[in-house]
Amino acid sequence: MNSYISFTYKEEKEVSRVYNFSAGPAVLPEEVLKEAAEEMLDYRGCGMSVMEMSHRSKVFDEIIKTAEADLRSLLNVPDNYKVLFLQGGAHLQFAQIPMNLMKNKVADYIVTGQWAKKAYNEAKLYGTANKIASSEDKTFSYIPDCSDLPISPDADYVYICENNTIYGTKFKTLPNTKGKTLVSDVSSCFLSEPMDVTKYGLIYGGVQKNIGPAGVVIVIIREDLVTDDVLPGTPTIMKYKTQVDADSLYNTPPCYGIYICGKVFKWIQKMGGLDAMKQINEEKAAILYDYLDESEMFKGTVRKEDRSLMNVPFVTDSEELNAKFIAEAKAAGFENLKGHRSVGGMRASIYNAMPIEGVKALVEFMKKFETENK
Amino acid sequence: MNSYISFTYKEEKEVSRVYNFSAGPAVLPEEVLKEAAEEMLDYRGCGMSVMEMSHRSKVFDEIIKTAEADLRSLLNVPDNYKVLFLQGGAHLQFAQIPMNLMKNKVADYIVTGQWAKKAYNEAKLYGTANKIASSEDKTFSYIPDCSDLPISPDADYVYICENNTIYGTKFKTLPNTKGKTLVSDVSSCFLSEPMDVTKYGLIYGGVQKNIGPAGVVIVIIREDLVTDDVLPGTPTIMKYKTQVDADSLYNTPPCYGIYICGKVFKWIQKMGGLDAMKQINEEKAAILYDYLDESEMFKGTVRKEDRSLMNVPFVTDSEELNAKFIAEAKAAGFENLKGHRSVGGMRASIYNAMPIEGVKALVEFMKKFETENK
Repeated sequence: MNSYISFTYKEEKEVSRVYNFSAGPAVLPEEVLKEAAEEMLDYRGCGMSVMEMSHRSKVFDEIIKTAEADLRSLLNVPDNYKVLFLQGGAHLQFAQIPMNLMKNKVADYIVTGQWAKKAYNEAKLYGTANKIASSEDKTFSYIPDCSDLPISPDADYVYICENNTIYGTKFKTLPNTKGKTLVSDVSSCFLSEPMDVTKYGLIYGGVQKNIGPAGVVIVIIREDLVTDDVLPGTPTIMKYKTQVDADSLYNTPPCYGIYICGKVFKWIQKMGGLDAMKQINEEKAAILYDYLDESEMFKGTVRKEDRSLMNVPFVTDSEELNAKFIAEAKAAGFENLKGHRSVGGMRASIYNAMPIEGVKALVEFMKKFETENK
Repeated sequence: MNSYISFTYKEEKEVSRVYNFSAGPAVLPEEVLKEAAEEMLDYRGCGMSVMEMSHRSKVFDEIIKTAEADLRSLLNVPDNYKVLFLQGGAHLQFAQIPMNLMKNKVADYIVTGQWAKKAYNEAKLYGTANKIASSEDKTFSYIPDCSDLPISPDADYVYICENNTIYGTKFKTLPNTKGKTLVSDVSSCFLSEPMDVTKYGLIYGGVQKNIGPAGVVIVIIREDLVTDDVLPGTPTIMKYKTQVDADSLYNTPPCYGIYICGKVFKWIQKMGGLDAMKQINEEKAAILYDYLDESEMFKGTVRKEDRSLMNVPFVTDSEELNAKFIAEAKAAGFENLKGHRSVGGMRASIYNAMPIEGVKALVEFMKKFETENK
């Protein structure tokens, strides 16, 4: 390559980083961001940014193919499952799933939080959606018993939201679907621990929590569910088959987001894969939960056996104290600890990229706050 | 802010940049990329990347609000038009437009290329789509006369693709819609020159040509077209009203892409706004077209009066020579000059961010090639 523009990119500056407990978009691994910054003007000598390259180019083809291969390897995705990188977020999937899978126009939903509820309500636009279990009676603070649910005989699928970002719960065992296809929104626990893909018909997740920047949704779908037989009025681009047949390149994909996801996959590999991630995530969560269990000021809001490794909501017994804590934590460099309005209090999202030092520092800060505000 | 992680970000390297004539995703202004690289780990002292921040945060709110205000100011968008930053690309709009606007289930399409044709075919899923004009008879190498078209009396709208990326044509005057709402796909001419927004009901464009990274589509819609009265089965997220009511934040938007678009809007302002962009673009296009008109080897493929300022297809009279030219140009640092398979030959996309030096260098290279290959 002979290049016509070139300049020296010189920089020396102090970069400051807060501990970012945002529920999503959320913290990303620093080394991923550093690499992205370094490659911004010239991706590995090709003379352009990943933002500027044709999605039909060889360079981008290698980026998306490598990302898919690394994801498949991390999750042990079997060959009869397709991997798609799509746009539109979970909200578009709420419609896309029934449009593609509701052959009998019946589906069963387990409602364990706001996102499952939204998916359930959206499915009603396309057929009969049955709420076969819910934990709304206690502000979604637990996962209902799903060992013997009234699965509809003609249900096309059973739907769950596997980790509930707002409420901090997670399915520790999958529901007994009595042979029906399981569809799972894994947005906020994606790649936080190993999962057995063969137990699902369709897995999807917005990447903006554990994997990359907002604007990419990853769908993993068993190939027998990929058909031309979709509901009338399904947009061509929303038929899974359209994108399966085109390897996610039917239209221009969100290239830059996919590139960042690919870097995060490499980072997880370097960390030791999903078994190692699980161990680290359990260690991080234990530091916070152990303190919550012993604290006289801060309390977790979730039934212990259903606690998420990713999202940890907690409260004090005073709104005033909650507000004081959030303000002082922010001033000390702990960002986005305010809980969702439907739960109140605080929430610490401790995704893969949150370093253990961040959780330790937070607990130290909480202890100090507790002592000072007894 | 007290930050807990900090490091020195040191770099000194030679960055090489090619002249990138890609049709999209396409070249972006270098200073935009430089700023993005500098802000990657710590956006203006907030301690995190724009990729990592909550879309509900004050910092991001300022990013998206500023982007919208700058776009409104560049295009003189009247107050009765809403601006949306969405996902899903033009392909999702192909369905979203009829789902929202086809009240009478009739729409008229002017088919001037592959993208207009795809939009036309998609509309058939939702009602009667009439092809009221076409230039397919001559491989879309011209814009048909649209001064007196057979507009359907009950048409909900008339649809055009204003600049045809593949074929290099552009509407120089808008069609006479006889009072019907005009809907325009401006993806490949967005912000390349001023436009009179009041002449349209809906304008939309994927940003990956003139404005930013793939994964954002901008919709500008007159507010009387924003209603709850959409076709049955329209996904909630695809109802324009859903996103209008939420200022594009009904769900997590493609935050990082919007941030880059915002930087490009600032860059266009600095260049002098759309009048100045038009002048520069005309100057750039003239350099290339003038040479094509005088060359004995290279010929433009488009009727002169319909030539696009953005996409310039050209051919020699030999496939072999075309291939030789593309290969030698690539070796000399001119990337992505291969034409679309449906036109053949070459295409130079010279969007806003292509510097005039790039066009001059290309023409010099073409002259040299012509001399050497007589």
